[in-house]
Amino acid sequence: MQQLVDEINERARAKFGTGRVADYIPALAEQNANKFGIAVCTNDGQVYAAGDARDAFSVQSIAKVFLLTLSLRVYQDTLWERVGLNPSGMPFNSLTQLEAERGKPRNPFINAGAIVVADRLVSAFATPSKHIRDVARRLSGNESILIDARVLESEWQHRSRNAAMAYLMKAFGNIDNDVDQVLHSYFSCCSLAMSCVDLAIALNYLAADGHAQAMGEQFIAADLARRINSIMFTCGMYDAAGDFAYRVGLPAKSGVGGGIIAIVPGKMTVCAWSPALDENGNSVAAQYALELLANEMGCEFGR
Amino acid sequence: MQQLVDEINERARAKFGTGRVADYIPALAEQNANKFGIAVCTNDGQVYAAGDARDAFSVQSIAKVFLLTLSLRVYQDTLWERVGLNPSGMPFNSLTQLEAERGKPRNPFINAGAIVVADRLVSAFATPSKHIRDVARRLSGNESILIDARVLESEWQHRSRNAAMAYLMKAFGNIDNDVDQVLHSYFSCCSLAMSCVDLAIALNYLAADGHAQAMGEQFIAADLARRINSIMFTCGMYDAAGDFAYRVGLPAKSGVGGGIIAIVPGKMTVCAWSPALDENGNSVAAQYALELLANEMGCEFGR
Amino acid sequence: MQQLVDEINERARAKFGTGRVADYIPALAEQNANKFGIAVCTNDGQVYAAGDARDAFSVQSIAKVFLLTLSLRVYQDTLWERVGLNPSGMPFNSLTQLEAERGKPRNPFINAGAIVVADRLVSAFATPSKHIRDVARRLSGNESILIDARVLESEWQHRSRNAAMAYLMKAFGNIDNDVDQVLHSYFSCCSLAMSCVDLAIALNYLAADGHAQAMGEQFIAADLARRINSIMFTCGMYDAAGDFAYRVGLPAKSGVGGGIIAIVPGKMTVCAWSPALDENGNSVAAQYALELLANEMGCEFGR
Amino acid sequence: MQQLVDEINERARAKFGTGRVADYIPALAEQNANKFGIAVCTNDGQVYAAGDARDAFSVQSIAKVFLLTLSLRVYQDTLWERVGLNPSGMPFNSLTQLEAERGKPRNPFINAGAIVVADRLVSAFATPSKHIRDVARRLSGNESILIDARVLESEWQHRSRNAAMAYLMKAFGNIDNDVDQVLHSYFSCCSLAMSCVDLAIALNYLAADGHAQAMGEQFIAADLARRINSIMFTCGMYDAAGDFAYRVGLPAKSGVGGGIIAIVPGKMTVCAWSPALDENGNSVAAQYALELLANEMGCEFGR
Repeated sequence: MQQLVDEINERARAKFGTGRVADYIPALAEQNANKFGIAVCTNDGQVYAAGDARDAFSVQSIAKVFLLTLSLRVYQDTLWERVGLNPSGMPFNSLTQLEAERGKPRNPFINAGAIVVADRLVSAFATPSKHIRDVARRLSGNESILIDARVLESEWQHRSRNAAMAYLMKAFGNIDNDVDQVLHSYFSCCSLAMSCVDLAIALNYLAADGHAQAMGEQFIAADLARRINSIMFTCGMYDAAGDFAYRVGLPAKSGVGGGIIAIVPGKMTVCAWSPALDENGNSVAAQYALELLANEMGCEFGR
Repeated sequence: MQQLVDEINERARAKFGTGRVADYIPALAEQNANKFGIAVCTNDGQVYAAGDARDAFSVQSIAKVFLLTLSLRVYQDTLWERVGLNPSGMPFNSLTQLEAERGKPRNPFINAGAIVVADRLVSAFATPSKHIRDVARRLSGNESILIDARVLESEWQHRSRNAAMAYLMKAFGNIDNDVDQVLHSYFSCCSLAMSCVDLAIALNYLAADGHAQAMGEQFIAADLARRINSIMFTCGMYDAAGDFAYRVGLPAKSGVGGGIIAIVPGKMTVCAWSPALDENGNSVAAQYALELLANEMGCEFGR
Repeated sequence: MQQLVDEINERARAKFGTGRVADYIPALAEQNANKFGIAVCTNDGQVYAAGDARDAFSVQSIAKVFLLTLSLRVYQDTLWERVGLNPSGMPFNSLTQLEAERGKPRNPFINAGAIVVADRLVSAFATPSKHIRDVARRLSGNESILIDARVLESEWQHRSRNAAMAYLMKAFGNIDNDVDQVLHSYFSCCSLAMSCVDLAIALNYLAADGHAQAMGEQFIAADLARRINSIMFTCGMYDAAGDFAYRVGLPAKSGVGGGIIAIVPGKMTVCAWSPALDENGNSVAAQYALELLANEMGCEFGR
Repeated sequence: MQQLVDEINERARAKFGTGRVADYIPALAEQNANKFGIAVCTNDGQVYAAGDARDAFSVQSIAKVFLLTLSLRVYQDTLWERVGLNPSGMPFNSLTQLEAERGKPRNPFINAGAIVVADRLVSAFATPSKHIRDVARRLSGNESILIDARVLESEWQHRSRNAAMAYLMKAFGNIDNDVDQVLHSYFSCCSLAMSCVDLAIALNYLAADGHAQAMGEQFIAADLARRINSIMFTCGMYDAAGDFAYRVGLPAKSGVGGGIIAIVPGKMTVCAWSPALDENGNSVAAQYALELLANEMGCEFGR
């Protein structure tokens, strides 16, 4: 396996020069495009890493997996009264569908859905941002994980579209708390700085029937882990969920920081990272790495 | 396994009385709602059946799996120049998205997508309807399979919405052949009358890496089978793909005739059938049966 | 007045070279772009003409005014059960709004609306195309007016988008007759070949409280004439109704043949024609001519 | 004329009991539904009033006419770089069209358009709310006109949907100033409390080629007045612009406070008011009053 990740590391770097670093906030635009890391965490606790796998990067939308998991732990299936679980078929930050469906977002992996989930956590926790950060630390076994204050500030300065979605949902009665407070929690979570190794360990509970290995305990129920995987499979890759399912065939979630986490249920998690994105907002080199790995291992979601 | 399908047969019949038989064409509206059948076909060739598993019913949208497979056999990945492979997020017969995306349907499992696929087959075969019927016979090992002429005539009489979609796509240059001819082929395929046993055997190639057991040959490449499964997982259950993925977690395709085919990759196919549908057009009892089976067997797409 | 139309004729020709001749059907694409005509018909029966004002051209969407008038004569306000009378805010041939509003077109001046109106005439008249042609002859006092068979054939060959709209409306129960027959009547009316002089005389009833001067009789009630003018003001210029209202401020209807008819209520009609169109499908030179005339005369809709 | 307005006052009151008082903000929901007033202001300075014509009510969207006029005075036609002037065909507070058209509202009489216009005034004036109030006072010759602080506070508390629109436009770069500040100015203007008499006098410049009679001066150019009338004709009555144009045929602007101002160019302004609204947000009794008056006087926009 170490040989495989080393080889993938080498081949994925050939993609440098393709795609563009996210520029929707200045703090992300400064990233070095020529970075690539990959980490595998097997269910029996082995970690294999290559390249820049220990560099912390902005998790961005990968945070939506944490938000969803933590919210499902509190609200179980009543969460689905606030957010759907079907693919949206629209860009991740669209207001059109949100208006047509009266403020109930299609799924928790589009921005509007994650904002609703964040609102649920604001209702449940006194300091939701700190709670999320602490859980990320415990799940990854890395106490030095931080919320990147510069990224957070940059998100806040450029909040207009997310604010538009939050206010629209509030107009429909689907946000209970103050919009500014909800956005702050949401942005805090997106601004977590974690490495490929951190994420592969932290999210291994999705491959391991809900058991979090760094915590040494059952984090969520087995069937809940399976269900989150299903949502990742259908909705995890922005508009390209179907393309990715067709080519790679694994549950995954990507972020505009360039990271992608993929789950091989029963076996392992894989996190790949490289900042340059394709037109769908998914990392070019990280996608390629996961495609290589899936083909090499013949690992199939469904086998 | 026979015990399990017998038990599911009994429990699923408790759902009689919930849902409504499809009424969009008269020929379907006459179906007896109080029918239920289930058939399992394992990759090693065992068939387990219960209830009305040998009654022929109208395959309707399950035909889209045949259409897609046959078209991919001819066109391979060039097919995707004509049709996408991402979830649509819109009703299966919507024209709005089709117009916005200039006549290229989102995926081959919405009506517009299947009509484009049918147009491809009209270009490739002299008698496409006969070709499809013959393949259905050979895949299921049942030479008596027929196209139901009454259903076909009824589809034709009520073709307005499908005709609207076909003409819109032709306006965008995405239909090459005469609209009437394409619709006729499409409706013929939807009007195939097959039983749960027929379908479970016929589509077992999707569970068996592309090997068709009744034909005794490799019908499509293994990776193509995996890819079709991915599309079924993300797009197979009309608007409820995400709900079904969350609850059942298997690649599946349903039809308004009341049938649903589900794939357990590497293991088996399951076909359940009962005519009464929920508001998404999916059979109430057949969905329930698949949920029971998935939970009992702990079979997970991804394990 | 003759001096004014001569001057406008001269100035409008300076616009030659701007815009593009309609190319959606081959028969129109062949038009000579460097044509311009203008005709004024006053309520007291004077006709002033300049340039190519006696060349027959394809009336195209100007026919929608005839269709609407003839249908209102038969059905009066019950017509509005089939078609709305509010601006659409969408392209004239959009299916999105038609689907959202369940097959009831926004107004009679978008294609879908005119097709519904044509369906009403097919229900009312044994030979609707002939009826429309005959009325056009009597209103203009020109017995030689013809339906251009080449244009009609070309419309038919390229009917896909209009057929899509007609089938969609039929799916919603808003078309009573056979789609092919309805489209044939609609295209026949659009294929009328008339000159600026013909149209200015024929539609003068809209300026003259419903009195048709060539027929010497009250063609429609005065309040109905006023109401058709209101619809022309709000919906007559495709997507540019507001722009045209802002700049010119007169009820008008344009066609992709390059003609525009404008009404100065209580005073006169003006028809200008030149084949090259702007991106909204309105003739560049004809719009300019009407703007010049409105400014020169200080004629205001509302004074 | 006094006799006519007295008669209309009597007949319009028969509509009491039809429609519902606006309830989107609590401060409006408390209005007494059984109020009706009408005032006519002729271009030669006569005022005819009946019923509750001197009761101040919340002008709400009628304020959009003031906002537009004041902004056109500053920016002239460059204003149209920020906002369109075509009918929207969508509900007045829709975000769907705003997103599709990248943050440029269709016209200045939908909420998004008026918010953009307010942003322009925030850029131009140190104290825009005070400026608007002072102009309303001078135009009506009534120095006691106030912004209703309770309505303003209520608008602010229920700003979510307007905030969503403003943030969406800011995301597209079409709002220059702080969203809270822009909304405050917009709501202030909507919260002006004026009577039928105040409004009929204040907006008479639109009937009088731009001459404001209470100020005794040319307020805007004659062609600008004509153009504002055209926008009112095509866009002034929310979704019912076409219906109103068909039935009444005058440029008008309504507000959810129950007021409607109508323009008879060259002659007079009419303001009617009654709080109960139809499903389009237009006052039932005020619309009826204007229809009676238009029919009685035979005044036609276009004559």
